[in-house]
Amino acid sequence: MTAIAIVGAGLIGRSWAIVFARAGLSVRVWDPDPDVLERLPADIAAMIDDAGADPAVADQVTPVPTLAEALDGAEWVQENGPEKLEVKRALFADIDRLAAPGAILASSSSALMPSAWSEGLAGAARCLVAHPVNPPHLVPVVELCPSARTMPEAMDRAEALFRDVGQVPARLNHEIGGFVLNRLQAVLLAESLRLVSEGVISVKGLDDTVRHGLGRRWAFMGPLETILLNAPDGVPDYMRRYGPMLAALTDGAARGEAFTEDAGRIVAEAFPGTHIRDRQDWRDRELAALDRHLRSRIERNN
Amino acid sequence: MTAIAIVGAGLIGRSWAIVFARAGLSVRVWDPDPDVLERLPADIAAMIDDAGADPAVADQVTPVPTLAEALDGAEWVQENGPEKLEVKRALFADIDRLAAPGAILASSSSALMPSAWSEGLAGAARCLVAHPVNPPHLVPVVELCPSARTMPEAMDRAEALFRDVGQVPARLNHEIGGFVLNRLQAVLLAESLRLVSEGVISVKGLDDTVRHGLGRRWAFMGPLETILLNAPDGVPDYMRRYGPMLAALTDGAARGEAFTEDAGRIVAEAFPGTHIRDRQDWRDRELAALDRHLRSRIERNN
Repeated sequence: MTAIAIVGAGLIGRSWAIVFARAGLSVRVWDPDPDVLERLPADIAAMIDDAGADPAVADQVTPVPTLAEALDGAEWVQENGPEKLEVKRALFADIDRLAAPGAILASSSSALMPSAWSEGLAGAARCLVAHPVNPPHLVPVVELCPSARTMPEAMDRAEALFRDVGQVPARLNHEIGGFVLNRLQAVLLAESLRLVSEGVISVKGLDDTVRHGLGRRWAFMGPLETILLNAPDGVPDYMRRYGPMLAALTDGAARGEAFTEDAGRIVAEAFPGTHIRDRQDWRDRELAALDRHLRSRIERNN
Repeated sequence: MTAIAIVGAGLIGRSWAIVFARAGLSVRVWDPDPDVLERLPADIAAMIDDAGADPAVADQVTPVPTLAEALDGAEWVQENGPEKLEVKRALFADIDRLAAPGAILASSSSALMPSAWSEGLAGAARCLVAHPVNPPHLVPVVELCPSARTMPEAMDRAEALFRDVGQVPARLNHEIGGFVLNRLQAVLLAESLRLVSEGVISVKGLDDTVRHGLGRRWAFMGPLETILLNAPDGVPDYMRRYGPMLAALTDGAARGEAFTEDAGRIVAEAFPGTHIRDRQDWRDRELAALDRHLRSRIERNN
């Protein structure tokens, strides 16, 4: 049975623990904050309950008081520390020194490139980013990003592991800022913020356009299969027909200047009286229900 | 009972007929091609069957041999002609002349601005765009776009009608090329095509990142509520923390140059042996299933 070490037990670390544990793997969790470790069994049990998973999954997760104990015998290390380069470098220096020789070392970082935090490590070849969407026990994609030093075998093992535990690995061939997911999110957000800032449409109208329109196909196909199916004479023909129109829309789209505090205020004011914590709980229930729906459709189509 | 005239009975026109008919409205359909009109009852019946709707809905839809008969007594006209400005102007000249004085005249156009095709019409104030996602009987959003001449009452009536028939109107305050939906689609597509063209990720990896990740939240929340719920200290605070990173990603993103035939070839080659018509049928079944899922969740949350 593969042993997993979770380093850092905030929301993402706890969610990762559930991903691996519900697949039957043995999970040890360390966090520098003893209070976090003490609350861990109760926090994990609550998350499992909210997700409607088997309570016995919690038995696979063991909090341990030292990093060395978490890493002892682990074949996979999933790090979820702060997004500060110096902190991450120091943490990975310890992890690389203490982990078993065959272990793969992955960071959940969304902002820091693997070349930056793995530079100078003896084990840089076994380091990579495995970036989840929060929370990973409810959203399956995991972006796998290597540095130029990462050995292909580490990427292969990462891909196999995440597939085995029921996640969907998406493998990048080289580093790029924001990886793929946040690059796509950023361009759509910039144009969205511009359109509501300029008063073209309300915040609710913008969100409705995506959730009752554009997002429907993207939730089960992605944007590229979407255009394939809108191109009965082939995608190159689609590009000849619609490319110039789409290119003009993109050339005229908002860029970084759209991310203003004013735009933030316009968004916030569109949700008066929203209790963020309650609404996050609602979001997580909806993510779980959507995941069940989409998995049932995949089974039906196979 | 509101009477609806559908002008142009291609895929979009037939889908609109189902939207209005299943809400109990009386629908008359005209198309300049007599073969299209002859096949209409069978085509509509097949679409109703595929969507799992009540076969009796088809009884509400009547093909008529002339534009004048379609418009006679109609309170709402939904036009679905070719996306050619001169054709649309000529068609709307006829529609404006023949329609009842109180009728609202809407075009399904995705590419032509309402100011362009309604210019010079006596009834320009009752003209607007009601742009669906194809097919509207499976995807609820309708973008409503006025010209500078459109009277607010026409927009109010459009909004009320689409809400009454179970669609989700998204109201623009003024014209903009691509409206909202295609502007958002264009920026995300440009960056997607660039990432696969440069070999950062495979076509499947890109689509997986959206369908198993980013698209999950957008299918029930939209992008702006998504950031609201990632901003426990408020969206302006979120902008201060993450704005610079998102701005940099957007500033470095692809623009119109990404829409190349080569990019089209890369997408096409990632789906070898795909039978487009069969896969479109699959897509429409999945859209219908997702719509049922999302509507059932809305009911549960109310």
